[in-house]
Amino acid sequence: MTGDPVGMHRVLEPLGALPQAAARLDTDPAIRDDEVRVRVQRLNLDAASFRQLSDKHGGDGEAVRAEVLEIVSRCGKMHNPVTGSGGMLVGTVEEVGEGSPLGLAVGDVVASLVSLTLTPLVIEDGLAGWDGLSEQVPAAGYAILFGRSIAAKLPKDLSMPLALSVMDVCGAPALTERHVRQYADPVVVVIGGAGKSGSLCLAAARRAGARRTIAVVPHAAERDLLEPTGLADHVLVCDARDPVALRDAIAAAGGPADLTIVCVDVPGCEGGGILATADGGTVIFFSMATSFSAAALGAEGLAADVTMIVGNGFVPGHAELALEIVRSEPAVRRLFEGRL
Amino acid sequence: MTGDPVGMHRVLEPLGALPQAAARLDTDPAIRDDEVRVRVQRLNLDAASFRQLSDKHGGDGEAVRAEVLEIVSRCGKMHNPVTGSGGMLVGTVEEVGEGSPLGLAVGDVVASLVSLTLTPLVIEDGLAGWDGLSEQVPAAGYAILFGRSIAAKLPKDLSMPLALSVMDVCGAPALTERHVRQYADPVVVVIGGAGKSGSLCLAAARRAGARRTIAVVPHAAERDLLEPTGLADHVLVCDARDPVALRDAIAAAGGPADLTIVCVDVPGCEGGGILATADGGTVIFFSMATSFSAAALGAEGLAADVTMIVGNGFVPGHAELALEIVRSEPAVRRLFEGRL
Repeated sequence: MTGDPVGMHRVLEPLGALPQAAARLDTDPAIRDDEVRVRVQRLNLDAASFRQLSDKHGGDGEAVRAEVLEIVSRCGKMHNPVTGSGGMLVGTVEEVGEGSPLGLAVGDVVASLVSLTLTPLVIEDGLAGWDGLSEQVPAAGYAILFGRSIAAKLPKDLSMPLALSVMDVCGAPALTERHVRQYADPVVVVIGGAGKSGSLCLAAARRAGARRTIAVVPHAAERDLLEPTGLADHVLVCDARDPVALRDAIAAAGGPADLTIVCVDVPGCEGGGILATADGGTVIFFSMATSFSAAALGAEGLAADVTMIVGNGFVPGHAELALEIVRSEPAVRRLFEGRL
Repeated sequence: MTGDPVGMHRVLEPLGALPQAAARLDTDPAIRDDEVRVRVQRLNLDAASFRQLSDKHGGDGEAVRAEVLEIVSRCGKMHNPVTGSGGMLVGTVEEVGEGSPLGLAVGDVVASLVSLTLTPLVIEDGLAGWDGLSEQVPAAGYAILFGRSIAAKLPKDLSMPLALSVMDVCGAPALTERHVRQYADPVVVVIGGAGKSGSLCLAAARRAGARRTIAVVPHAAERDLLEPTGLADHVLVCDARDPVALRDAIAAAGGPADLTIVCVDVPGCEGGGILATADGGTVIFFSMATSFSAAALGAEGLAADVTMIVGNGFVPGHAELALEIVRSEPAVRRLFEGRL
């Protein structure tokens, strides 16, 4: 029996919801003709989700682990109810339906590039190998990929943690590249430029033709990390939640931006992103902490003629582009390796 | 002395907050060089705000009036602390700073198109002409517009309630027009096509070159309202929260869409908007009920290469465009007048 390509046949409640919006998924290990079952080795929790869980439990790793297990068991997927976000997984292909369009074979080591919030998942080891203190979660269990899911084989020339860490944020540089190309010699601001997606976006922006790149970081330690790499023309230490301070700092560094990319996973950066950007410019929000209404009402209240984009994690060719940047930009690779 | 264009110089507390986020604004009637003072005639409270106040006081108009006076006196603006919303005002320009970029002259009758939640306001008549029983509030007092505020002259050929009702949603058709022009002969889907913003978007899409317009409405009564107007080539009755049903209905009507515009104020329409749209297409979300993470993760989970836009209520020329549509499209005007 062939499944629905987006996985509607796995939705238990509410009926009619897409798997991502569903409260509970069917985790039956028996696959349909177009599905793939993956033996899970590792989960990579979304940064906003991990931070919320860690903050909620005051950094108590045992409590974080217990809540992740509870969510997966109740929902049949890892879907943080507060942040709405999930993460990704790595595993080995265990069974491939004969009608699967994903091009995978049994034994392939793959990363899922669709969110854990829509991926049927069963954890079988109680996450015994995880201390609850980092986003990288060793895990044993299985997951199901649908006909329209996206999975990438892990490259052989990069370590698994590094490849996973790159693929987790690979949508950001690809979408950045696309939007940079829509402007002639643009000024590009990356808020959170020393982070994983931020450093990839800085490199992607320069390759795509940015005239000037400006990175915003929250404190001197991140400036000292980023500045020597040369990935950005300017590195500014500024609280992105203070919109006027941010606007003024960026103006002094050669702004405002034609394109602003918000890569920090803290709430309250909508006004800063908008005020950093020139009229006619674009703001891409990649942070899952973004509030839709704060962005919409903020731009209207500031009479800001900016195009605001919901950062879509899927762009064709995104994983290949991000891995290529990491291979060819030693500075980006060092930043990633420093965070593993 | 010239003010800050977004009004930071009027923020009394907390310092550093934008006027919209501030607890209290400075209502000094002496204007800065780039400000405008307006003699207020009428406030139009946001519908959600008025409903909350009326419900809280059990429909007691005296108590509602007293609370509005208390809020404005305490905050220096009309900012409902529960709903977070404000409304708009109508008045006559009383004084124009010589550096004001708004293009207004003393005596102009204007509507403010930025929210009351960020507009310094003083009420001088105790709202004696208002019974506290409707959102339309006759008022005497003054308000301050900043350099970057937006105000539109009220047209002389339309009634004030009709003009206000159009200006309230005027960002949607302007942004629709801009994005329709980015495609050659596109198919445009408007979810919520029989509503105020929806009907304006349908008309704007056709004017901007849409090859085919498809309206989605929730029930037969709205179809019977919209179909005879001819504003849409197809009118579909479909629950926009059911993404697969929506996808299939739109495909049968000549879709998928190059541009999908979501104008309905109910949660859960993100997946439908995405699945209604072709790869390479655009979805604009105007609904304040949109979830950022549901949109971002939904598109990723569906491997949908669509550009998702946060509907910005400000586009230059938006009020003029919307009023022009209402003047020249009798069907749109009748839909609006039927909702006054």
